[in-house]
Amino acid sequence: AQSNITLYGIVDANVSFSKIGDNRFRGVQSGGLSASRIGFRGTEDLGNGLKVLFTLEYGISTDTGDGITGARQSWVGLEGDYGFVGIGRQYSPGYNVSGLIDPFASSAALSPVLLAQGVNYQGSVFPVSTAATIQGGGGGRFDNSLLYRSRDFGGLRFEAMYAFGENADQGDMLGNRDAGNFIGLGGTYRNGPLTLGIAYHRSESTRFSFMGFDGRQLDKREWYLGGRYDLGPAELAVSWQEIRSGASFSGVGTDNWRDRIWQVSGLVPINQAGSILAGYAQLDAEYGDEDVKVWTLAYTHAMSRRTTAYAGYRHVDNRDAAGTGALPGLRVDDNFGRSSQGLVLGVRHAF
Amino acid sequence: AQSNITLYGIVDANVSFSKIGDNRFRGVQSGGLSASRIGFRGTEDLGNGLKVLFTLEYGISTDTGDGITGARQSWVGLEGDYGFVGIGRQYSPGYNVSGLIDPFASSAALSPVLLAQGVNYQGSVFPVSTAATIQGGGGGRFDNSLLYRSRDFGGLRFEAMYAFGENADQGDMLGNRDAGNFIGLGGTYRNGPLTLGIAYHRSESTRFSFMGFDGRQLDKREWYLGGRYDLGPAELAVSWQEIRSGASFSGVGTDNWRDRIWQVSGLVPINQAGSILAGYAQLDAEYGDEDVKVWTLAYTHAMSRRTTAYAGYRHVDNRDAAGTGALPGLRVDDNFGRSSQGLVLGVRHAF
Amino acid sequence: AQSNITLYGIVDANVSFSKIGDNRFRGVQSGGLSASRIGFRGTEDLGNGLKVLFTLEYGISTDTGDGITGARQSWVGLEGDYGFVGIGRQYSPGYNVSGLIDPFASSAALSPVLLAQGVNYQGSVFPVSTAATIQGGGGGRFDNSLLYRSRDFGGLRFEAMYAFGENADQGDMLGNRDAGNFIGLGGTYRNGPLTLGIAYHRSESTRFSFMGFDGRQLDKREWYLGGRYDLGPAELAVSWQEIRSGASFSGVGTDNWRDRIWQVSGLVPINQAGSILAGYAQLDAEYGDEDVKVWTLAYTHAMSRRTTAYAGYRHVDNRDAAGTGALPGLRVDDNFGRSSQGLVLGVRHAF
Repeated sequence: AQSNITLYGIVDANVSFSKIGDNRFRGVQSGGLSASRIGFRGTEDLGNGLKVLFTLEYGISTDTGDGITGARQSWVGLEGDYGFVGIGRQYSPGYNVSGLIDPFASSAALSPVLLAQGVNYQGSVFPVSTAATIQGGGGGRFDNSLLYRSRDFGGLRFEAMYAFGENADQGDMLGNRDAGNFIGLGGTYRNGPLTLGIAYHRSESTRFSFMGFDGRQLDKREWYLGGRYDLGPAELAVSWQEIRSGASFSGVGTDNWRDRIWQVSGLVPINQAGSILAGYAQLDAEYGDEDVKVWTLAYTHAMSRRTTAYAGYRHVDNRDAAGTGALPGLRVDDNFGRSSQGLVLGVRHAF
Repeated sequence: AQSNITLYGIVDANVSFSKIGDNRFRGVQSGGLSASRIGFRGTEDLGNGLKVLFTLEYGISTDTGDGITGARQSWVGLEGDYGFVGIGRQYSPGYNVSGLIDPFASSAALSPVLLAQGVNYQGSVFPVSTAATIQGGGGGRFDNSLLYRSRDFGGLRFEAMYAFGENADQGDMLGNRDAGNFIGLGGTYRNGPLTLGIAYHRSESTRFSFMGFDGRQLDKREWYLGGRYDLGPAELAVSWQEIRSGASFSGVGTDNWRDRIWQVSGLVPINQAGSILAGYAQLDAEYGDEDVKVWTLAYTHAMSRRTTAYAGYRHVDNRDAAGTGALPGLRVDDNFGRSSQGLVLGVRHAF
Repeated sequence: AQSNITLYGIVDANVSFSKIGDNRFRGVQSGGLSASRIGFRGTEDLGNGLKVLFTLEYGISTDTGDGITGARQSWVGLEGDYGFVGIGRQYSPGYNVSGLIDPFASSAALSPVLLAQGVNYQGSVFPVSTAATIQGGGGGRFDNSLLYRSRDFGGLRFEAMYAFGENADQGDMLGNRDAGNFIGLGGTYRNGPLTLGIAYHRSESTRFSFMGFDGRQLDKREWYLGGRYDLGPAELAVSWQEIRSGASFSGVGTDNWRDRIWQVSGLVPINQAGSILAGYAQLDAEYGDEDVKVWTLAYTHAMSRRTTAYAGYRHVDNRDAAGTGALPGLRVDDNFGRSSQGLVLGVRHAF
């Protein structure tokens, strides 16, 4: 049974320096370029062009005594001529699509879009972008999901996911059994130097009760459009996404709040091993008219096909919003609206 | 050191629909036919017919972000001509014996016996069968245990376990250091189409104090008898088990309460890959004269030696007892005595 | 990616009997000779004499249902002609140095030095030795650390570690961002039958506030000196270490408290497979003039290169201190100053 199982993972650690306002942090962090992880995957040929696949992937920390933590992925699926069908905890269509476009992909330390999403609004009752599930880090993976991924049709590929919220029925008036049910759709087109991606996510609303009044959170809807083009001396990527949600309370409706995030980024190979990455993302939040601007610059050096040294800098201009609280030791609450900067020097090894 | 270590496991996920009374659940569940798990086992030849073996096996969820959870098995042992001696957390004799008899084995979703044991009694102060350790799911494995398993003597095999409760001494009057100490005995006989099994478990009592009075829980004793016969076109299995426990309080004795569970089940291969399984179990609880009747029906389709698709239905007639609370979203407490039904469609892959 | 990854570990379990005063324990324990663990390590050749290495090692219990627990080691590093540089959670220099000297190494059940360190002082506000990081069990590994290890220079080797405390800045007066920052230095000399080791650890102080007064814990400093000599029929080892710490409160200074621990131990091979180990350690605590004396005696039998059966006895003379609380079920608090004894019979298998 051993022959077709692969043990794999990523160990990524960096020395990190960051500040927000007068508050400074320095230390070792896990997962700068890519989240550290360990996984087990396997496949078995069932004949007739059909095979079964599974992936069990868990988070790890390449800096502290935390053990093997929560499952990133945990699914079993079947693949055949018709495509792939999986069941379990899986990456969502929007996560998969945006991962193909963004040169920074899911870099927690350096992706402009992820950093913009991590920003907390000062005084915002309903932060919308922080709960994004397209390009949303851990939020982009769904428990209790069924995923269909099509075959490749001349560069076109399509994904659809349904995930069960599995919430308890709280009675007729308050709460609902469908809360958290999720639909995700994604499509990509790849042709030579061009990659295009589109995605739509919808999470069903929940109803709640407060002092006898009937509250209702609106469905969360997300759209994503992105493209990447390889010019030869450089790759360019642009993306645009929108997140809408909101709430009503005892019939006193509220409009949808709407956050928009767009980015431009580029990757310039400068020699056999080295590349420069630069990116800019802007978050336009409808609520309170709060904007956040993030730019990052990185150099990656491929020491081998599986080992990459990296250095990166990020600047988050928080305007009316609080800065990212991702780094321990930074007292974000005293520094609303102050810009933050960070520098990381690290190494990522994929095994 | 790598050569003789095996990484193994089971990923089992299903789409599950169930209801009790008016309360319904639908979602993805892990471990319908067999609990999802990942394990590491190895062996080393010590010469002179002696070898050392170890197993480290942990639970996983093929549906949510839960990580690698508690140890199912964690032991090291020696095997020689005399048999096997192990130390650690191990399967009990009753678990091993009943696993050979019951065609549904340890299927959390479809084993009639396990479903009957999961039932909660309405108003019962001392539910007995829910704490069964013979065919008792996770309760069938014991921490801090020593296990001896004999060689095969012409089809006969014997097992004995002693497990330390490792409880603190609470003084002369209340509590006792032996609480939780466990003895388990099991025997099997296999001859051609016939398998017979017998087991006995005994868990030592504990003393407790309540408002100055001296309480005493009685020793829990369990018996099991089972048999399985392969008729050719079908396999038939029957088993009977009894669980006794009780309590006394300040000398005001109570009798032992006694639960009995019996089952009949069968497995009918219908072609090269497909089998039909059907089972019926009945729980007769002495306390309150509460009975529970469970029947299940399943179809399993072997897509390969290691991959099985399955569909199954279960019906639990709860009578005066509450239904199984195993499925999230089902408000058992509002549905005492109502029957519950469930349908599962899933796939199990062993690697 | 699979080819150069090694899955390894230790499963170590024993039957343990121990007592302190009138309080007795018996049961199964994990990790008598060496802590039970499971790990994944790998290496990749980067060319030019450079390679990348990683280790992910987690604690396990070979006795209970505890799963794969905290990370013992979790690091990635580069090794070349200049030596090794690692980042992550790593063994400290003092841990590495003392591990080469002490025949009992990191045996939780039988190392006299570790047992002496586990002793709790009766009435001591600032137990010093219990927080030792040289030969300090789990305390000897550091999160968020950078480690440099030199090449071997004719038997000489040198290590230096810096670990970030990563504490939040609590303002000007109270708390400080450097609290927990750590420096460790270690050196070893190996020449034929002789091994010498020296180490120094320093953990930066923390400031704290209590009822408006400014408290300050002093820096913790540790020294270690040890040697081991192989006489042929026996190996002898001696070590000496000192731990200093203390506190001041609102300017009312306190001196440093100082604990000293010294040990002598020996290993006598008695045949091809069997060895006798004996050790004595004495803790001289400055605070309250409390002394603890520990002696242990063990027999180890190598059943193979990777499997060892062992039997051991320990005696802790606690004098004015409470005994080790390492074993469940022993009510240490009722037994201040009483001596404790323990017997273990177990097996360790390294895979």
